[in-house]
Amino acid sequence: MELIRVATVHSQLTDLAAAPKQGDEGAPEATLVFEPGFVTALDGIEPGDDLLVLTWLDRASRDVLRVRPRDDVARREHGVFATRSPDRPNPIGVHRVTVLAVDGANVRVRDLEALDATPVVDVKPVLRTVEER
Amino acid sequence: MELIRVATVHSQLTDLAAAPKQGDEGAPEATLVFEPGFVTALDGIEPGDDLLVLTWLDRASRDVLRVRPRDDVARREHGVFATRSPDRPNPIGVHRVTVLAVDGANVRVRDLEALDATPVVDVKPVLRTVEER
Repeated sequence: MELIRVATVHSQLTDLAAAPKQGDEGAPEATLVFEPGFVTALDGIEPGDDLLVLTWLDRASRDVLRVRPRDDVARREHGVFATRSPDRPNPIGVHRVTVLAVDGANVRVRDLEALDATPVVDVKPVLRTVEER
Repeated sequence: MELIRVATVHSQLTDLAAAPKQGDEGAPEATLVFEPGFVTALDGIEPGDDLLVLTWLDRASRDVLRVRPRDDVARREHGVFATRSPDRPNPIGVHRVTVLAVDGANVRVRDLEALDATPVVDVKPVLRTVEER
């Protein structure tokens, strides 16, 4: 189960401490820059689309199994699977973003809280209701 | 970027052709059986919780970059990143499920369309709105 990089996050966010906890808590716009071989796999993605972006959180700790949610010492410890902590056995980030523009290999999005240079491993549409499919 | 198995899907679904396209289109109940070392990471997960389950779709093709959505020949070809096709460069499934019961290493869920024996690589809560956090 070996992941390959399909794109890379280009973002002003470079500091883990300054990053928002979630994309809708003040993340800047960011650009996903796709590897040349995967540009054909973007066909059909358009401005306004809501996407799930899956990233590899390469600065996370993989041996953490319990955390306090949102680093709040007043809250009791939880297992990482009950939280969205980046520290977890497989540090895959799931980010819901909205597409602003598509220009060749570059997809501009808003609400992405991932740090600059984070590898992107997958992109898929947000699942709509059965009626909309 | 090497994934490790944290759990395994136990399901009546064994046949790719018979599996529903999405979990809310008739998937049976299923059980996630966690590896012993990761049971502590489940602490805080309770019946009624809505979770994202990330799986490794080990029967998918990784070299497919374009498909027709829902295998419908009447629809035009799209890039796989514009679809939920299991065939994609990194075949990670994102499944929204509801927890029915937690018993030690076993988490019973509904609406999981993954096939029996599929590796689970991550579990996290569905992200709620800012107000609910």
